[in-house]
Amino acid sequence: MTQDSDIREGEIQLDFNPADRAQEGVTFIGQIRSDWSRGNSPRNISQAREAGGGNARIELEPDYLAGLQGLDVGRPIWVLYWMDRGRRDLIVQVPRHSPDQRGVFSLRSPVRPNPIAMAAVIITSIDPETGVIRIDATDAFDRTPVVDIKPWMAGIDVPPGM
Amino acid sequence: MTQDSDIREGEIQLDFNPADRAQEGVTFIGQIRSDWSRGNSPRNISQAREAGGGNARIELEPDYLAGLQGLDVGRPIWVLYWMDRGRRDLIVQVPRHSPDQRGVFSLRSPVRPNPIAMAAVIITSIDPETGVIRIDATDAFDRTPVVDIKPWMAGIDVPPGM
Repeated sequence: MTQDSDIREGEIQLDFNPADRAQEGVTFIGQIRSDWSRGNSPRNISQAREAGGGNARIELEPDYLAGLQGLDVGRPIWVLYWMDRGRRDLIVQVPRHSPDQRGVFSLRSPVRPNPIAMAAVIITSIDPETGVIRIDATDAFDRTPVVDIKPWMAGIDVPPGM
Repeated sequence: MTQDSDIREGEIQLDFNPADRAQEGVTFIGQIRSDWSRGNSPRNISQAREAGGGNARIELEPDYLAGLQGLDVGRPIWVLYWMDRGRRDLIVQVPRHSPDQRGVFSLRSPVRPNPIAMAAVIITSIDPETGVIRIDATDAFDRTPVVDIKPWMAGIDVPPGM
């Protein structure tokens, strides 16, 4: 786990750990499999694509197989995953690539009160019997827990004027 | 709360409630305020925009105020929220607007194993002292719990080829 020594100058810590204030629970519906681990992972999904995608796939838990009905190859989806390797209490951060202090809500940092990440990806294969969904890329570490899959929809996922 | 009688013909229920299998906890960082309640809410955010937006704003919990640094009016953001009014155990659903059975992961239904929704919206005002962030629209009920705010970024939030 990360330590207080991981705090950079200018970063601000909450005086509590959000993990100690759980109000609802998430369950893991599967996991992301990838070639990435700490030390060899891309910084974001664009870099992951440039690096060939990372052999990215989702292994769905068998209990949830029926939920795949209606998903097909070529469909854009959201994968929501739980970034379980980091701390949750840095409310102001100093990104590695920038000297500025930034509030966590203006960053996509994995360090945040609720470490939920979202990746917009394309299904490249899907096996409804094993629950293995290959996707075009991921920047997530191998065995990152998945909490949701949803269809990506241009009409609602691109804000007005963008 | 919803009841088993809310299941429509063709819908399939898990034999457990995902809420009983919590592996990590989410904490609420604030709440969405809106004019919407059960019975008068739009079906999605496009409808909400057509209806004038719903007087949409986020009230951030005071503990998290410093996290707003770097967010400004006009910025597109994601609001992640917890759809706390529904059941979590319908793995196959029959949407009201369609006669077909659909797996939950091919739907944006609020009924899902982890009821996390995402809205891509524009900041229309922000008060760093009170933590009130006005946004252009929401389709969420008044007092829906918020679990995260992130910047929307075209480079990662639009999948390749879309």
